[in-house]
Amino acid sequence: MELHPFDEAIALTALGADRFGGHTSQAYWNMVGPFGGITAATVLQAVMQHPSRLGEPVALTVNYASALVDGPFTVTARAARTNRSTQHWVVEMAQKGATGADETVLTATLLTAVRRSTWGVNDTPMPLVPAPQQVPSDRRFAPVEWVNRYEIRAVSGGIPQVWDGLPNPADASSASLTQLWVRDQPPRPLDFCALAAYADVFYPRIYLRRASRVAAGTVSMTVYFHASAADLAALADGFVLAQARAQVFHAGFFDQTAQLWSSFGRLLVTSQQIVYYKE
Amino acid sequence: MELHPFDEAIALTALGADRFGGHTSQAYWNMVGPFGGITAATVLQAVMQHPSRLGEPVALTVNYASALVDGPFTVTARAARTNRSTQHWVVEMAQKGATGADETVLTATLLTAVRRSTWGVNDTPMPLVPAPQQVPSDRRFAPVEWVNRYEIRAVSGGIPQVWDGLPNPADASSASLTQLWVRDQPPRPLDFCALAAYADVFYPRIYLRRASRVAAGTVSMTVYFHASAADLAALADGFVLAQARAQVFHAGFFDQTAQLWSSFGRLLVTSQQIVYYKE
Repeated sequence: MELHPFDEAIALTALGADRFGGHTSQAYWNMVGPFGGITAATVLQAVMQHPSRLGEPVALTVNYASALVDGPFTVTARAARTNRSTQHWVVEMAQKGATGADETVLTATLLTAVRRSTWGVNDTPMPLVPAPQQVPSDRRFAPVEWVNRYEIRAVSGGIPQVWDGLPNPADASSASLTQLWVRDQPPRPLDFCALAAYADVFYPRIYLRRASRVAAGTVSMTVYFHASAADLAALADGFVLAQARAQVFHAGFFDQTAQLWSSFGRLLVTSQQIVYYKE
Repeated sequence: MELHPFDEAIALTALGADRFGGHTSQAYWNMVGPFGGITAATVLQAVMQHPSRLGEPVALTVNYASALVDGPFTVTARAARTNRSTQHWVVEMAQKGATGADETVLTATLLTAVRRSTWGVNDTPMPLVPAPQQVPSDRRFAPVEWVNRYEIRAVSGGIPQVWDGLPNPADASSASLTQLWVRDQPPRPLDFCALAAYADVFYPRIYLRRASRVAAGTVSMTVYFHASAADLAALADGFVLAQARAQVFHAGFFDQTAQLWSSFGRLLVTSQQIVYYKE
């Protein structure tokens, strides 16, 4: 049976206690390295397949220290603390540098937990948007390979078609707002790794805010999961509504808040990232 | 000269390369351990005084693995990767456990960077609120010691005075919203460490959402800084407007997004945290 390209990209081989080996995937290539979402998913995958894992992912923070080069990498995933129902992981990804020595390309932390039923409420309802089938597929998202691994249907805030460098005239709350339907292409059952990647599926907010394609790249992303593996399995390979906006652009870094909902309006993920930009 | 209690609480002694020693502070004690904000500030302080630090803090993630016990602790802060203008830190805090061995009580990552001037815009204006002097000081915030180290003036969403367990009847966008003016007590010049602590100054959102005091504690907090040391110095010991709300409560964890503005409306910090709760 052939693996889905996503599963092929995040595949890891156990190299010893806490240590895994993987290889970058051309199928998820971005401009100068892999798509950040696939790297986040790979970090998560290391813990998902770790024999000591307790519970399911709750909070993941990934710091992109350097662009990965095409080739092999190692992931070390260490349970720094295991409590009765929570576990704290410290993860690092490394590649051989020019001198042959291992160099850190990514640092991460992950909280996993055995969750239990409690009172709950979603105070962030899904925006009212047309169904995925009513929205045209976005073919001009970006000229990079990884976007071909996703079916993206932008409801609002699609990538600008005119790069005139003029600040977006929309009001502050929507000048950097994108709402899009996304799923894997070909479709693939939803899981935590898929969601970690979706959280990074947006093109840089500064493109939209200024209609200008300045150099930009995520340096840190945090993803909170609000669903269980069973919840996700029940969604099969359905679309997810992904929303992102920036709160502030300042001195070379802007932030981005994001939410992911199932097509039934269930809030699955809330996320935040900080992105380097030039000019 | 006597140190400000905040500086006393976050004081660290160099114990060797990448290694620092500190002691918990009764002045910032919470219910079953130190106030999470003072611990976050202490983590940041380790890097601030590290001789190899490059630039200023941009993104801090702190994972609270266990409540600290009253006593000494060690902090290790390691630069996992140093680039031309950015640096990635991995930090851990440990205390001696029952067996005498070091146990991890906190993990953290920090991005520091040499920032430069770029185009920028604040798309999250400060809400229109009365000036701090027009808002009464909040004396019933919580019966814990650390709140006495802050002057807190709640504009909206102050701690409930009636614990009737009824869900907040306000609409979803404001049912867990708190806006408050905060500064150190006694006043102290603003800096990155102070802001890291302010980011955690809110009582648990579930108290407000349900008018119920269920067990709750932050397990992971991410803080993005959007100001320079010089910007902060110019604010002296002025008040900061702090705003927080939860997006979702689900199966034992709720999230919290937060913003901190200077009294002049400058967005200084955006933050996110995930909080354990029971029932």
